[in-house]
Amino acid sequence: MSETWTPDHMRKVFEQVKNWGRWGADDERGALNLITPAKRREGAAAVVAGETVSCALELPVHPSPENPHPAMHMMLAAGDDCLIPGFNFESVMDFVGVAFHGMATSHIDALCHVFVDGQMYNGFSKHDVKSTGALRGSIMAARDGISSRGVLLDIPRLLGVPWLEPGTAVTASQLEQAEESQGVRVAEGDILLVGTGRDARRAEKGPWSPIQTGLAGLHPDCVPWLHARGVAVLGGDGVSDPLPGSGIPDWPMPFHQCALVAMGVHLLDNLRLDALAEACSRHGRWVFQLGVAPLRVDKGTGSPVNPIAVL
Amino acid sequence: MSETWTPDHMRKVFEQVKNWGRWGADDERGALNLITPAKRREGAAAVVAGETVSCALELPVHPSPENPHPAMHMMLAAGDDCLIPGFNFESVMDFVGVAFHGMATSHIDALCHVFVDGQMYNGFSKHDVKSTGALRGSIMAARDGISSRGVLLDIPRLLGVPWLEPGTAVTASQLEQAEESQGVRVAEGDILLVGTGRDARRAEKGPWSPIQTGLAGLHPDCVPWLHARGVAVLGGDGVSDPLPGSGIPDWPMPFHQCALVAMGVHLLDNLRLDALAEACSRHGRWVFQLGVAPLRVDKGTGSPVNPIAVL
Amino acid sequence: MSETWTPDHMRKVFEQVKNWGRWGADDERGALNLITPAKRREGAAAVVAGETVSCALELPVHPSPENPHPAMHMMLAAGDDCLIPGFNFESVMDFVGVAFHGMATSHIDALCHVFVDGQMYNGFSKHDVKSTGALRGSIMAARDGISSRGVLLDIPRLLGVPWLEPGTAVTASQLEQAEESQGVRVAEGDILLVGTGRDARRAEKGPWSPIQTGLAGLHPDCVPWLHARGVAVLGGDGVSDPLPGSGIPDWPMPFHQCALVAMGVHLLDNLRLDALAEACSRHGRWVFQLGVAPLRVDKGTGSPVNPIAVL
Amino acid sequence: MSETWTPDHMRKVFEQVKNWGRWGADDERGALNLITPAKRREGAAAVVAGETVSCALELPVHPSPENPHPAMHMMLAAGDDCLIPGFNFESVMDFVGVAFHGMATSHIDALCHVFVDGQMYNGFSKHDVKSTGALRGSIMAARDGISSRGVLLDIPRLLGVPWLEPGTAVTASQLEQAEESQGVRVAEGDILLVGTGRDARRAEKGPWSPIQTGLAGLHPDCVPWLHARGVAVLGGDGVSDPLPGSGIPDWPMPFHQCALVAMGVHLLDNLRLDALAEACSRHGRWVFQLGVAPLRVDKGTGSPVNPIAVL
Repeated sequence: MSETWTPDHMRKVFEQVKNWGRWGADDERGALNLITPAKRREGAAAVVAGETVSCALELPVHPSPENPHPAMHMMLAAGDDCLIPGFNFESVMDFVGVAFHGMATSHIDALCHVFVDGQMYNGFSKHDVKSTGALRGSIMAARDGISSRGVLLDIPRLLGVPWLEPGTAVTASQLEQAEESQGVRVAEGDILLVGTGRDARRAEKGPWSPIQTGLAGLHPDCVPWLHARGVAVLGGDGVSDPLPGSGIPDWPMPFHQCALVAMGVHLLDNLRLDALAEACSRHGRWVFQLGVAPLRVDKGTGSPVNPIAVL
Repeated sequence: MSETWTPDHMRKVFEQVKNWGRWGADDERGALNLITPAKRREGAAAVVAGETVSCALELPVHPSPENPHPAMHMMLAAGDDCLIPGFNFESVMDFVGVAFHGMATSHIDALCHVFVDGQMYNGFSKHDVKSTGALRGSIMAARDGISSRGVLLDIPRLLGVPWLEPGTAVTASQLEQAEESQGVRVAEGDILLVGTGRDARRAEKGPWSPIQTGLAGLHPDCVPWLHARGVAVLGGDGVSDPLPGSGIPDWPMPFHQCALVAMGVHLLDNLRLDALAEACSRHGRWVFQLGVAPLRVDKGTGSPVNPIAVL
Repeated sequence: MSETWTPDHMRKVFEQVKNWGRWGADDERGALNLITPAKRREGAAAVVAGETVSCALELPVHPSPENPHPAMHMMLAAGDDCLIPGFNFESVMDFVGVAFHGMATSHIDALCHVFVDGQMYNGFSKHDVKSTGALRGSIMAARDGISSRGVLLDIPRLLGVPWLEPGTAVTASQLEQAEESQGVRVAEGDILLVGTGRDARRAEKGPWSPIQTGLAGLHPDCVPWLHARGVAVLGGDGVSDPLPGSGIPDWPMPFHQCALVAMGVHLLDNLRLDALAEACSRHGRWVFQLGVAPLRVDKGTGSPVNPIAVL
Repeated sequence: MSETWTPDHMRKVFEQVKNWGRWGADDERGALNLITPAKRREGAAAVVAGETVSCALELPVHPSPENPHPAMHMMLAAGDDCLIPGFNFESVMDFVGVAFHGMATSHIDALCHVFVDGQMYNGFSKHDVKSTGALRGSIMAARDGISSRGVLLDIPRLLGVPWLEPGTAVTASQLEQAEESQGVRVAEGDILLVGTGRDARRAEKGPWSPIQTGLAGLHPDCVPWLHARGVAVLGGDGVSDPLPGSGIPDWPMPFHQCALVAMGVHLLDNLRLDALAEACSRHGRWVFQLGVAPLRVDKGTGSPVNPIAVL
């Protein structure tokens, strides 16, 4: 980071973009409040081609450098033993389980996922997240699903490269250049997805450790930009924050700290965006309807998701 | 069942509605093929009010008579120990896991979930579902999500009762009466949801065991009706089949056997439909856009889902 | 409980039997310290017949009234798909998981499992047990295994009944009568097992809910008796405490509160003792070597175990 | 391997050491039958010092190169939320789960774990191990625990090195030299543990991938030696077989194939043996009582264990 981005400056940005109290002292939905009925209709109106595209990776059941805690997928009964006793019926079943936070599962972060100085969005205490679950800021804020207009900004496309190298930080200025280049403008209530080419790099070079090698993400100067534009939900093929960390003391992950905590903006992490970029490019349109349907996990800190773009 | 519904008759129905080969010998999507781009646009066009309603129950983490195998929700770190070592960042995390088939989790059945005579949809063998996962007919057929027009037929409303008693079988004639009463008509490519009032009964009487006490569902005479209408996906607040079983030898669950296996129609089980019925009633419209976004579980037999209706 | 057993009296008993500081301010082993090398030799010397008997129930993978949270046992690969790719080797594997506390899994309670007034054994704070695990009083105190002389007191045998009814409380006087009747005397460093006939009742009447119907256990007047005798570990076919609760305000489970917290006596819950009683009776000896081998779970609150008696 | 060790030769060895039918056509205990009551008494008589030593690693909950599938340890309730509702009782709980086969969990292999030509010990078919569990050869064969005389042969000590390098194969001749050097002789019914210094190497160099870098183990010429001596159970700090594989076509893991399948010898994998070696050396005795207490997992292919040596 340049010398502008001191802890003091981050603190000022944090205070400047803070939405605490904006939707009431008890609000747990944060910037989801920006998705109005009119905005949902605008999302539906963005459906032109009638094509759906998934923005999720496959559930990461295999260990890999980017996935040190594999998800669980285990059969309970397969074709070799599928007859249910006493009931002439052939059926198979399985179990899925996942510690979805991390760097390999496409997931949504609930607002309680991160604290700054022991406080989450809207000033709720970290002590409201107990060993038995989150009493405040849980993913149940999004229990009825998220449906809005989605916008994809494809930064490698802007820069004419296949991918951004790990650690790269995309600036607000670059987001605006991508808007111009793609002929879109991010507006209040939008779900903004920023592509950095992680899928292309993985396909070419194999998976890598985001902790050790890093991930591309957004420069902290995008924080006020997102606030000004009124973005409702932010997603990316990484974790929005470049890794390994911003280098700003006390603010290692400015987006996790400012988007989730200050602005109440839910984050979509580890999306797969290459197929969406291809479809948008093919249709020549970078807006679409985006649906995100978290599992209804009471007291949960987020959920694995498969966000679906309808173009 | 009346005496018409013998095993021989069920077999004839099974053969009559069979879509095997209809979309190619290798097809694994089944009736999802009926959801065309035009149909997805029709779904999007059904968004009028700009309201989202979840059709899922909360993940059933507590044991209950309807839930003998509770789902898992466990915190990995809570507010009492949220500082990530060596990284000045406060964060909490959890794990979710579920054996989602059963009677208490809102889920989608993949086409490989059920066999008749050892065969799944399109004639694939039960031996393609191994202890390590499903090589054919997995939920990956729906990996890009399902988005179409949804229709809710609310049978208790038709009959003027708060709920149907466990074991009740809704006939095709009643579905048509509900259509007429609600002013809708189920058409090709629709996702049909049939409400039987399970949520209302649970709210009033507490949870009960579907295995022992039963569930309301559809009469097998709805099988040819669904085929004739070209329903793409079928869902309900029960498991489509009345429990405990149809009473027809070898055909204990005609919908699991004919919808999944013969027709290639994915099933949505254990939905929560009371909130959707309330919203439809309030808006005076029983059609909506419905999005279903299964987790991308390679070789999976289905997925927990939170289907979102956008009205 | 009789009127003697008031909260004040329980408090006095708690203070009277307290071993805090007895083995040092940092001690986490509690009464395991009573198992000296000589005691282990005494245990080994109790082996006469050369027969082993398990004191554990099968891992409870099926839901039942006594087991609302079934354990997990899932195959990762079975005989239908056992060839490891790229390695000409046929192998099968599985996964086991269990929330072992509860009423159906044979397990050992670590000393951190229970608090009185926010304190565990030796005065450590409940806040030392975090959402990420126990920093004090974990099962690692027994990481090198427990091996000592075991003594079984078989109360139904004493009373000439097949089992004690749920809720029954065995008194210290009855323990002494059983000693006399069986020709044994519980001594310092022993592992004491008290049988109440739960296995026989389950075999006859089927499983029942310990929470709703209750379990037989020990009367609180056994607390000072255990302390006087110097019992190192206490186990039973129930949970040592009668259920549902003692009826003494603030002291619902006197043994979980006084044995674990005051005395530092580890508890073995939900053992299977019918086979051991049969073997002891057959050999005419009620002492044996007993080995308990908790899994080495760092920061764990206990472990599922299969205690093995060698007669 | 030298040219002697061809697939044909391995096949002859396999046939030569085969115990199928030796203890009856239905036998599922294999060489555990060699542990007679007299042998158990001999084990107990080996207790001299009265000291217990664990032979298990800690449950591997953290990802590492030797542990790509971490075990699960999750708190269900910690000190921040330990008051059980409606029951004035403070208690904490957790969950443990593990896919215990692999290279980082101390575990016992059931006889059904491996097949040769589709057959397990005593000729049972691989098809008896279903997606729902093992009908034959499960770990329930050892449900009453294993207690016998244990012998540790410490090969690095013999060779005057801190550890054997990965891939090293210890010969039968070396086992005999270790016997002579340590003043012990492996006899019928013993549990033989062979140390290769894995713990010392891990402590010095950090964990490594057994798949990629390898593990030390036994040369196949130890197979007939083990058979001749009548070893009941074989264990080691690796997986008995050197990795990566023997290099003999079709016989990549001669011990998993000959010990488990031909001889019916259960295997103990990934033990921790440094503490036991230290204790044996200190006491100047290399024999001890060894207890192994698998969890009673019906249809299980093995169990995580904490084998306890009593010296």
